Amino acid sequence: MKEFRLIEQISRLFTKIEGGIGIGDDAAAIKTENEYQLITVDTLTENTHYRKKWTKLLPDLYKTLGWKLLAVSVSDIASMGGTPLTAVVSFTLKKNFEEKEIVELAKGLSSACNYFNVTLAGGDTVRGNCEVFSLTLTGKSTKVMTRDAAKPGEFVAVTGPCGDAAAGLKILESGKINTNDERKLVRKFLLPHPSVETAKKLAVSGVKCCMDNSDGLLFTCREIALKSGVSINIHSERVPMSKEIKTVFKDEALNLALYGGEDFNLVFTFPENLKNIFEKEKNIFIIGKTARGTGLYLDGKPVQVSAFDHFGG
Amino acid sequence: MKEFRLIEQISRLFTKIEGGIGIGDDAAAIKTENEYQLITVDTLTENTHYRKKWTKLLPDLYKTLGWKLLAVSVSDIASMGGTPLTAVVSFTLKKNFEEKEIVELAKGLSSACNYFNVTLAGGDTVRGNCEVFSLTLTGKSTKVMTRDAAKPGEFVAVTGPCGDAAAGLKILESGKINTNDERKLVRKFLLPHPSVETAKKLAVSGVKCCMDNSDGLLFTCREIALKSGVSINIHSERVPMSKEIKTVFKDEALNLALYGGEDFNLVFTFPENLKNIFEKEKNIFIIGKTARGTGLYLDGKPVQVSAFDHFGG
Repeated sequence: MKEFRLIEQISRLFTKIEGGIGIGDDAAAIKTENEYQLITVDTLTENTHYRKKWTKLLPDLYKTLGWKLLAVSVSDIASMGGTPLTAVVSFTLKKNFEEKEIVELAKGLSSACNYFNVTLAGGDTVRGNCEVFSLTLTGKSTKVMTRDAAKPGEFVAVTGPCGDAAAGLKILESGKINTNDERKLVRKFLLPHPSVETAKKLAVSGVKCCMDNSDGLLFTCREIALKSGVSINIHSERVPMSKEIKTVFKDEALNLALYGGEDFNLVFTFPENLKNIFEKEKNIFIIGKTARGTGLYLDGKPVQVSAFDHFGG
Repeated sequence: MKEFRLIEQISRLFTKIEGGIGIGDDAAAIKTENEYQLITVDTLTENTHYRKKWTKLLPDLYKTLGWKLLAVSVSDIASMGGTPLTAVVSFTLKKNFEEKEIVELAKGLSSACNYFNVTLAGGDTVRGNCEVFSLTLTGKSTKVMTRDAAKPGEFVAVTGPCGDAAAGLKILESGKINTNDERKLVRKFLLPHPSVETAKKLAVSGVKCCMDNSDGLLFTCREIALKSGVSINIHSERVPMSKEIKTVFKDEALNLALYGGEDFNLVFTFPENLKNIFEKEKNIFIIGKTARGTGLYLDGKPVQVSAFDHFGG
């Protein structure tokens, strides 16, 4: 994709951060005396992340956007093992923007700030030709987990059911929400709840390699394999799925679980000696293993993946 | 303006920062053990801050946008007396964006990072229906200067000639750059050079009230008067102007100096006992005084002002 090439090209223009982790991980980490300062930015924009017409199905769409705007950045900080701290926002609004929608968005953002214990420190609005909501979040941590720290012979695990968010998006795009199960899946897409506590527990337990699966489960595994210089094999029958996705999407469910994005669970690797601990955790699902070599394998066969694109554009 | 009402409405939804300075100052400041952490966000968007057609006059327009994107945030941090540290960016790009333009922008941003000693820690690009460049900058300081700290009986000063940027914008909008003076004014609009060192010197000298004049000189004075609960009188003949603006705009120059925005100088107030020091500084121009009461006065007469709007939209 043009954007990925561009980011690489741009990265080369900037000096590497001393003692830190620069462009390319979930959040950037800057080492200070006794901790890491983390910073990340995320943006939601019309027709890439949401559609105005969804308000017909979801009168509270903008409230959910406010929640999601913070939650996706919290996921970036959490997946590095950090605690989120302070956010600033920048809203680009069209000339004829609906004041009510933006106040709703602010309410959703305010709920999320309370839930994730984040201080909104400031922000600005500018006028533009399209609607863009951008949020920058700072955080801190004493240890950081990164996507390039997997070693051969480790287990690969995920912290929750996969595919629900992509399933919810598919339902939204169909224009109808028919059942309670469908409504639940839509909510999973709209209101991600990344777990800061789970991520911290992983970091404290000694996990070094972690990434959120917002770009899709297999894409995330491929990224970890690539950046860590290992191969990864995923067992499809071990990938956790909710009863809702299985009920609504039947045979299609696994595909959504493997390739669908926006779940905001954690994918991480850990060595043999942690297996006893993690096996007992009900929110940890071991789905594969790393090995010497390169590449991503699904049930032993090589597999190609690209990052999840909401509207396949 | 609709946007101002909206910001007030939104601010009420969020809790005040403990021991800090929240929404409404140039940057937000959060008190930590022995210093303030500062954070600010700024956004440049097509047809609000720049026009694509300017590339006909300025082949390096996008390079200047990259510079400006950081410089305006540096001004926010500087005007509070802080040192800029780390930036993250979010670019919203149209489907058919010009890769070359964005690489140029990154080059300008990279130069500015070197000049202002800022680390670009990360960023993302998303696809949207318009072009938006957003940058968040963190900083730190041991003391902070704010816009609400002016006291009656103080002097009001500015750190550089006023109106050059607005003059440059006016020339750009005319579609022609005829003389070297005009070119210099255009460059003042495109390539602001906020002075972190000057701002630090002010803070160290004991200045408590400071704000950048990006929204226009008189608007800035009005904001200081309003937030500090004092009145301010400005002597128009003392407002510093460059020889370029006087040559090109003649009688119109003072109007640009008083009402035009985007200069990124500092406006500050100081008590009598600092007058001896500041009078000797060649980059400090005393332009007025504060007094008990409320309101903004120009040469003794009450004056109404609103924030500078680039294209009067």
